[in-house]
Amino acid sequence: MQLIDGGVTAPQGFIANGVLSGIKSGRTKEDTALIFSEKVCNSAGVFTQNVVKAEPVKLTRLRLKNRHKAQAVIANSGNANACTGEQGAWAAVRMTRAAANSLSNSEKIGMKVDEDDVLVCSTGVIGQQLPVEVIEEHIDELVEGLSKEGHEKARQAIMTTDTQFKECAVEFEVGGKTVRIGTMAKGSGMIHINMGTMLSFITTDCAISSEMLEKALHSSVEGTYNCVSVDGDTSTNDTLLILANGMAENPEITSDGPDYQEFLKALNFVNTQMARKIAGDGEGAEHLLVCTVQGAKDVQSARNLAKSVISSSLVKAAFFGKDANWGRILCAMGYSGELFDPQKVSVSFSNSKGCIKVYDHGNPVDFDEDNAKILLSEKEVGILVLLEEGEASGTAWGCDLTYEYVKINGDYRT
Amino acid sequence: MQLIDGGVTAPQGFIANGVLSGIKSGRTKEDTALIFSEKVCNSAGVFTQNVVKAEPVKLTRLRLKNRHKAQAVIANSGNANACTGEQGAWAAVRMTRAAANSLSNSEKIGMKVDEDDVLVCSTGVIGQQLPVEVIEEHIDELVEGLSKEGHEKARQAIMTTDTQFKECAVEFEVGGKTVRIGTMAKGSGMIHINMGTMLSFITTDCAISSEMLEKALHSSVEGTYNCVSVDGDTSTNDTLLILANGMAENPEITSDGPDYQEFLKALNFVNTQMARKIAGDGEGAEHLLVCTVQGAKDVQSARNLAKSVISSSLVKAAFFGKDANWGRILCAMGYSGELFDPQKVSVSFSNSKGCIKVYDHGNPVDFDEDNAKILLSEKEVGILVLLEEGEASGTAWGCDLTYEYVKINGDYRT
Repeated sequence: MQLIDGGVTAPQGFIANGVLSGIKSGRTKEDTALIFSEKVCNSAGVFTQNVVKAEPVKLTRLRLKNRHKAQAVIANSGNANACTGEQGAWAAVRMTRAAANSLSNSEKIGMKVDEDDVLVCSTGVIGQQLPVEVIEEHIDELVEGLSKEGHEKARQAIMTTDTQFKECAVEFEVGGKTVRIGTMAKGSGMIHINMGTMLSFITTDCAISSEMLEKALHSSVEGTYNCVSVDGDTSTNDTLLILANGMAENPEITSDGPDYQEFLKALNFVNTQMARKIAGDGEGAEHLLVCTVQGAKDVQSARNLAKSVISSSLVKAAFFGKDANWGRILCAMGYSGELFDPQKVSVSFSNSKGCIKVYDHGNPVDFDEDNAKILLSEKEVGILVLLEEGEASGTAWGCDLTYEYVKINGDYRT
Repeated sequence: MQLIDGGVTAPQGFIANGVLSGIKSGRTKEDTALIFSEKVCNSAGVFTQNVVKAEPVKLTRLRLKNRHKAQAVIANSGNANACTGEQGAWAAVRMTRAAANSLSNSEKIGMKVDEDDVLVCSTGVIGQQLPVEVIEEHIDELVEGLSKEGHEKARQAIMTTDTQFKECAVEFEVGGKTVRIGTMAKGSGMIHINMGTMLSFITTDCAISSEMLEKALHSSVEGTYNCVSVDGDTSTNDTLLILANGMAENPEITSDGPDYQEFLKALNFVNTQMARKIAGDGEGAEHLLVCTVQGAKDVQSARNLAKSVISSSLVKAAFFGKDANWGRILCAMGYSGELFDPQKVSVSFSNSKGCIKVYDHGNPVDFDEDNAKILLSEKEVGILVLLEEGEASGTAWGCDLTYEYVKINGDYRT
């Protein structure tokens, strides 16, 4: 497996684009993205578990549930189209209809695209009506600009408070054929561990049945997106979609086996990369926190403990202050809901430059505070927790809590 | 029932004091508190549910479990005595032993005080050994200064990042006798809804059996302390203690009935007052948030929804920015774990000056943003959520998320 360029358009048959429709006043960069596959794809999705679901989430979930197919995804930033009632539901339908009509009428595309094969996602402020007419006005421009290079505009169009675009692509072998997976995501705020991102799109030219695609996606999400937290808020709009068009012409993966495992490994890799990017670019974040718990009784327990640590406001604030306040880590583990013996716990901080043990089998270690401060000044900081409860380990990704987070979220809407 | 002065020394037979032992360098105010009752009290406690428990929590819990009695409480700020191993366990014992010895040797007290009747609490930084010898050095000064006025020094001695002391006392009638309840607490940070305060002490001269005292305390905590959140972190040190010395000479309350209900009503009142004070003085807080959910299917559901709202970082940051971003309230309700129909929800903001409806039966309301900004500028802001699922209601108390919170917690330890 190797990293390649190209994001969502890296796999064969996928093109993308982004344009500025003008959804939110003042925005000067693209706000509407389109991903298109020249062949209809098997598709699967994971959605927010929030009881309050955005209108595009309801529509996309319904379409995938009925058909497990997709050929295009239209997405906008600047407005979440959530808590918008019937008018919002209609706006989501209009987005997919506009895309299907424009694609079908385009000489460039040269084929009919079914409205039911277009999925839709929105991200941005909750509770304001989406000005869908501006998207309709720009839809032909969006379609005509579709290209292999268009992943750059598409990845830009889904960003809100993100400071960096997030994409990744890999190439690997399945059944003697070269297969590619590409992905892009937006993260930043309102991100927590039930699903764990606002929007993420994965494309692949791998031939894989809907059933195995769905299985792979759910399996991969558990240890990747579901282990990310920026602020403990599970959004109304979280959506992770995967589209597989089969153009790599590998023998179709229809059951578990070496091919499926190879695909899953690559999928886990790209999802892990994106999980790290989303956490590291959390709203206002200065540090990426990577907490690994080893020696837990099972994987779920290890992950729950790691998630509790990187979700704690006090832990997050301490890392912002470069303060080796490890007591808060123990405290956060203690209210995770997992049982463990505090007397068997050891904690270290680590990064590329070294490792400092601060707590050893239930007792504080007398460590060098100045060295710790230097270690905690790095962009990426590791928190290593050793239990003696079993053999399992798990990792979660988070970020520090900063003035900037408060600033961004104290004045986001207006 | 009427409010009276005096905090924990308002009930008959209770005296208190606070001194500066010098537990944490740089502190110039009292850091060690003592509450004493001239008669041995029936006593009950509620403790942190964190798996990692501070040493004084373990000791106090054990003593109450064995005997349900107490005559004195010694408490310190500046050091939590948590994650400190055997040395910490021994330090907690030494605090109670020093207090018992000094009380027993004091001519002023004039009676033997059993070490097992002294309870102990600590609050402050986790993971540093408690310098118990400085407390031992100042224990006679602490005992000799015990007085009715000493509640003022005691309430000061338990404060950490609190900006205001928190105390309350009431007087009411039980069985033809005047009964008093007094309380003091410290709050501020690492405060969440499992227990919900770091340290709180309640004294009463009411005659009430251990069993009914325990029942009353647990019943009252559910709708008061357990509905407070400052930052979602459940401390290792949370302790709520009640001491009842029976000196009001009312007929002892030994079962449910009008006397018990009168006592419970007063206890709920003082605990609610303290819950509000703790939330309003959350670390860095500029606003007290009071979220009331009405029309829920049951009380627990109403409280869970209200807690989820006031615990959300994004809701908290929006109130800091005086931004009427009600979508985040819906979002937080949606991931609370409670089921409800979003189409039946209405949301209003309110304070002493008025009420603004922002969401009505699943649809956004076109409200005046300027008026909303004025309303949200008040110190106390109400969030009123109406469901149409049933008849139950519940309230939770929280505060906004501010730069100051991040500042305090980015540099608390050093």
